[in-house]
Amino acid sequence: MSKSDKSGIAPRGMGSNSVRARRLGLDTQYEAVVVMHKDCAVCRSEGFSAHARVQLCNGKRRVIATLYQATGDLVAHDEAALSESAWRRLGLTNGGSITIAHPAPLDSLSHVRSRIYGHDLVESSFNAIIRDVVDGKYSDIDLSSFLTACAAKPLDHKEILALTHAMVETGERLQWPAGIIVDKHWVGGLPGNRTTPIIVAIVASLGLTMPKTSSRAITSPAGTADAMETMAPVDLDTPVIRQVVEREGGCVVWGGAIKLSPADDILIRVERALDLDSEGQLIASVLSKKIAAGSTHLVIDMPVGPTAKVRDAKTAETLSRDIISVAETFGLRVKIVTTDGLEPVGRGIGPALEARDVLAVLCGKADAPQDLRQRAIALAGALLELAGAAPAAGGDAMAAQALDDGRAWAKFQRICEAQGGMRVPPTSNQQRPLLADRPGLVQAIDNRKIARLAKLAGAPDDKAAGVDLHVSLGDTVTARQPLCTVHAESPGELAYAFDYAAANPGIVMVREP
Amino acid sequence: MSKSDKSGIAPRGMGSNSVRARRLGLDTQYEAVVVMHKDCAVCRSEGFSAHARVQLCNGKRRVIATLYQATGDLVAHDEAALSESAWRRLGLTNGGSITIAHPAPLDSLSHVRSRIYGHDLVESSFNAIIRDVVDGKYSDIDLSSFLTACAAKPLDHKEILALTHAMVETGERLQWPAGIIVDKHWVGGLPGNRTTPIIVAIVASLGLTMPKTSSRAITSPAGTADAMETMAPVDLDTPVIRQVVEREGGCVVWGGAIKLSPADDILIRVERALDLDSEGQLIASVLSKKIAAGSTHLVIDMPVGPTAKVRDAKTAETLSRDIISVAETFGLRVKIVTTDGLEPVGRGIGPALEARDVLAVLCGKADAPQDLRQRAIALAGALLELAGAAPAAGGDAMAAQALDDGRAWAKFQRICEAQGGMRVPPTSNQQRPLLADRPGLVQAIDNRKIARLAKLAGAPDDKAAGVDLHVSLGDTVTARQPLCTVHAESPGELAYAFDYAAANPGIVMVREP
Repeated sequence: MSKSDKSGIAPRGMGSNSVRARRLGLDTQYEAVVVMHKDCAVCRSEGFSAHARVQLCNGKRRVIATLYQATGDLVAHDEAALSESAWRRLGLTNGGSITIAHPAPLDSLSHVRSRIYGHDLVESSFNAIIRDVVDGKYSDIDLSSFLTACAAKPLDHKEILALTHAMVETGERLQWPAGIIVDKHWVGGLPGNRTTPIIVAIVASLGLTMPKTSSRAITSPAGTADAMETMAPVDLDTPVIRQVVEREGGCVVWGGAIKLSPADDILIRVERALDLDSEGQLIASVLSKKIAAGSTHLVIDMPVGPTAKVRDAKTAETLSRDIISVAETFGLRVKIVTTDGLEPVGRGIGPALEARDVLAVLCGKADAPQDLRQRAIALAGALLELAGAAPAAGGDAMAAQALDDGRAWAKFQRICEAQGGMRVPPTSNQQRPLLADRPGLVQAIDNRKIARLAKLAGAPDDKAAGVDLHVSLGDTVTARQPLCTVHAESPGELAYAFDYAAANPGIVMVREP
Repeated sequence: MSKSDKSGIAPRGMGSNSVRARRLGLDTQYEAVVVMHKDCAVCRSEGFSAHARVQLCNGKRRVIATLYQATGDLVAHDEAALSESAWRRLGLTNGGSITIAHPAPLDSLSHVRSRIYGHDLVESSFNAIIRDVVDGKYSDIDLSSFLTACAAKPLDHKEILALTHAMVETGERLQWPAGIIVDKHWVGGLPGNRTTPIIVAIVASLGLTMPKTSSRAITSPAGTADAMETMAPVDLDTPVIRQVVEREGGCVVWGGAIKLSPADDILIRVERALDLDSEGQLIASVLSKKIAAGSTHLVIDMPVGPTAKVRDAKTAETLSRDIISVAETFGLRVKIVTTDGLEPVGRGIGPALEARDVLAVLCGKADAPQDLRQRAIALAGALLELAGAAPAAGGDAMAAQALDDGRAWAKFQRICEAQGGMRVPPTSNQQRPLLADRPGLVQAIDNRKIARLAKLAGAPDDKAAGVDLHVSLGDTVTARQPLCTVHAESPGELAYAFDYAAANPGIVMVREP
């Protein structure tokens, strides 16, 4: 800073750290970011340096943000430019002003340190930690340390209970008049649970209550909520969800507007970055969401396999026992269904293409994907048995019957109407097949690359975009036989996807037999 | 994204992710940040989402950066706007272009996970981890997890050796013709080691070789390099440092240009954020820097007290034994001097004011701060004994003699000349005393707030700015007696500092007796 700059600064009283808020138009995802001028009065008087954590206030709303400092003319001396996340959480409108201060010290970090040094945490410590996590006070460094400490010395049963409880209590909780509320969960954490709308339709048609909240895609080509949205509105608030469920016994809505176990969303991001799967965190993560949703009976779809989260049958057994034991404490009955989890389910990848598979199964079409139908029946059957709506070993038959006699399809239509009106999934206006470059056997399908292809084609933003698979593992194909069809909304995006396919041969791997 | 935006995008071949680099003028400290438009071709084709880690390349230079996405007109569709850290590390000039890609997976994180799950790490694992840390590939999440894992299950002797070795090997190493190279270190991690220039002058005047590299202030009002810079140039490159040391046997230079154990600087930032002090990390941190600097004999000033890093004598003893044992493996002899570390040393706070104290001691002025003199003598004496230049228990007397007979002062002047010419520390043009608001006893001096006061007055950027303390704990003062004088370069900054003092009474706490 030059001498002349500094002598021009008018002194300010301490504590009057009020500056003009400006919307920077910057997507920083979860992280709140504020940009101020390096030589501005607040940075000088508070002694802020770049990358400091600062507290931003707009009235009663508070956010802890990362401070970056502009040296040029990116921001004026009297303004604070905010990322979208900071702007939204502060509830700002253009022209508002905010105050900036040092954040208070985080007392709950002493519990994190205590656990690092080998001490078990009691319930009040987990409560304090999770409260601060939900309030956005933990930096990535803090979150990572907490999760690592919980993995280095595994959480014991009491600690898992306490963590689950803390995660439930720091979010919204739903309550339902029905005594039995069923739910399902897919441990994989991967896309592919297009079974959900089918299961909801089946069990609701058989008298059970299943208020299902689903997520949108974050990194995948479609979440359940994205696929469902091509058939009915999913962005409903809690009172409307309640009406739908009271009327029809089930729903498939977007859960993002309801803050069930918000700590889970924050912790899971860091766990994924670390590729850490500690059992205690997994149990607390799954159960806290379901307990907060008011569920009483839960079927968990647990893929077991060398590339899945759960590697072998023995691990699955231990994990299942621990999940069931923790869940029981909260009055939640759980049944775990292990699946192989290696193969894709259904043919479509992308919101509308997945919806088409779902509708084919519900309508009992001859060409409906049978793997999707079987998976949905198995999970719905398990739910029916668990909830006492079907006799032991009689759930699958009951579920299949509801599909075959049209009850599930009728129920699904009524649920869509109740959610705001049934829609016909859109179809794309650009399609192009990806052809086999040789005759042979389909030896492998790269799920990660297939997903990338679908995203390049426009999914999930373009509902009709994605990939439609025409072959399965082990199929015999001829040269230039279509392996899949890419759907897009514009020629440019179709070209994107095919540029990628050209640069990545073997998305669907065909080998001479 | 609207339809019209997308249809206008021309498809790009995969792999040609070249964009115009723009300097954003944003200080993000250590973190490399790149801002691109959310709808730009690279983000779309690579499937990048906000907060992704991306690899930026300029020729052979590579940097892993955090990606933020602009939604408005902050950046154009064909450009990448870079933070100062990214810009510098890529060696960019205006108008250059860079390529952007997904970073390769970090294999060394598997070793971190292995340690989380309780396995000791071997040397090759530490080498892989520390190499990636130094290359900037570890995110805050990764760094925090590694450090937490090393604290949750303390590093054993073999692991500390391996970590120290990895930290030494991933940076520069200095070598000296002299057989004995002495050094000192202050475990406190706090400002206050203004003893360094005095110690260097004493031991060099007595024939030892002490090539001292020091740091600039990061969050404090002055580092040793900042204070030394008011008396001589400190920003020297390695060949010049070598000339100075060959001629005079000692130097006090800024170490920032020499990358000794660069991993330490990265790890220590995260350790501070976590407030984690694991013994293994502490030992590796201190010793790796000294081994890399080519030191053979090291005196460590270890403050022990309830608020210091080392809380009690027993911990100090264990830690000392472990440090000495690890150091010996690397051929480094260590003596640990425990000090109380509770009271400030000297009177000045700020580069020039601290230099004035140093010069007063070196010149033997009657009003020189005696605590600073005594501390310097004790540490220099220990070094002389350790290096065999003084008989056991004879070091202090020898050090005091070199101060009293002018040899240390003469040596200091010659060192300054060799570093580029001795300078007279500047004096401020604005001063104002902070007065006692009542008569009484000086009961406490808030070191943190005094430091803040000095920084608000302009230290360390303004070399002459800072605070000059006139009282010590236990002194009796009258009402309106000056407790300290604030020095600044402009009336505005003096006003800043006094606004702060007015809002924070009790920086120097005076109580009725």
